Amino acid sequence: MERTYDYDFIVTAADCNAQRELSISTLATYIIDTATGHANELGVGFDHMISLGISWVLSRVSVELTEPTRVGRRYRLRTWVASLNRLFSERNFALIDLDADKPVGYARTIWMAINMETRSPGDLSSLQPLSGAIIDLPCPIAPQGKIVMPEIGDEVHEYTFAVSDIDVNRHVTTRRYCDLITDCWPLDMYERNHVKRFDIAFKHEAHYGETARYGAVAEAEEGVYAARIDSGDTLCTLARLVFTPR
Amino acid sequence: MERTYDYDFIVTAADCNAQRELSISTLATYIIDTATGHANELGVGFDHMISLGISWVLSRVSVELTEPTRVGRRYRLRTWVASLNRLFSERNFALIDLDADKPVGYARTIWMAINMETRSPGDLSSLQPLSGAIIDLPCPIAPQGKIVMPEIGDEVHEYTFAVSDIDVNRHVTTRRYCDLITDCWPLDMYERNHVKRFDIAFKHEAHYGETARYGAVAEAEEGVYAARIDSGDTLCTLARLVFTPR
Repeated sequence: MERTYDYDFIVTAADCNAQRELSISTLATYIIDTATGHANELGVGFDHMISLGISWVLSRVSVELTEPTRVGRRYRLRTWVASLNRLFSERNFALIDLDADKPVGYARTIWMAINMETRSPGDLSSLQPLSGAIIDLPCPIAPQGKIVMPEIGDEVHEYTFAVSDIDVNRHVTTRRYCDLITDCWPLDMYERNHVKRFDIAFKHEAHYGETARYGAVAEAEEGVYAARIDSGDTLCTLARLVFTPR
Repeated sequence: MERTYDYDFIVTAADCNAQRELSISTLATYIIDTATGHANELGVGFDHMISLGISWVLSRVSVELTEPTRVGRRYRLRTWVASLNRLFSERNFALIDLDADKPVGYARTIWMAINMETRSPGDLSSLQPLSGAIIDLPCPIAPQGKIVMPEIGDEVHEYTFAVSDIDVNRHVTTRRYCDLITDCWPLDMYERNHVKRFDIAFKHEAHYGETARYGAVAEAEEGVYAARIDSGDTLCTLARLVFTPR
């Protein structure tokens, strides 16, 4: 049993957004895939969890990059379990540029399990393979701070969740939340800046047919914005993005 | 140089839609990834094409399944180049259930290249590695027929293309078109039926900020529907889906 798990990939043009970089949702998807790969190897993957009647749910993700990902380059996502308690498992990541042989970013994620029937939190403390895999490796980025956003900004967008947004747990996919967060800003914003850090907190599940309202507001610090998605009357997702000029 | 290229995968719960199968857009994405893998191996991948100022564009995809994909099973997508002329490259696929060791579906795709500057069609006939790879293997599903749909049905949906929908070519991603086609029907339709065959023709590019109108109409034959996406006044995507009861 390996305490770290590596996922190597090349950023191809086909993977990229208009800026020829990995988008937030693609990076988040790779992070989830890498976590899934390690969990499978440890015997606590989605499929095993579902056999116990529970399912992994990503609760928070924070990514900080020292440089943007670039098309044509080879990267390694390395993951490890940093901590575990009854309700949460903390899993960290390093993003290594394999051509330059150096880390270009880190990620912190917090996972929960939900009971597929009752939708209440599942107990993680009995997952021995996970507690046995805990290792203390450096992850030199700040943990996710509290994101406060009393209301959606002036420019409110709306979207009704459809069939393609629904996952095996019958709630909206992480990809869709990440895309809605991304879409709080116009294309021009991404042409002029790249995203240096993003923090996303998934607060409540949204469901098929619900209409989301989402938008962003600038914080006091230059380039820093908060964003949120409400689904109906429920706060669904909170995010903070740090943009830095290209 | 291999004339066929294989992409093996396990359908994990994390990959699945609400019906615990691969969605149309995930299947289409795997097909594109497999095509990309083979093209890269042949030296005519996206990155090489972009160095020539042209870029691969998927023009048509048809998929027919004898049984739905299922969570937990191992599959192989095998692809090969079936034909090539100046404007089009025809690439076929077999989807093999590795556990049962039998094909459970086939796909036909038609690819074009566009000039990244002029947006006019690129010339494929000079791509020797591609013509050298042509092989005649069985693909026992009908080629894509002409899809006719004079207008969008009564239930028109609207969607404005946002940042997360835009690819490296600065047009809307294949994934988004496939998801909008999927979303022409309610969740209930997919609970009662699975998609036995889908044909999608990508007619014109849609762009950032354009508003799409999309919807479906029943054809004369039971379970057969046509769907289309218009972007502004332009017909963008046509599709035909064959549903069969579960």
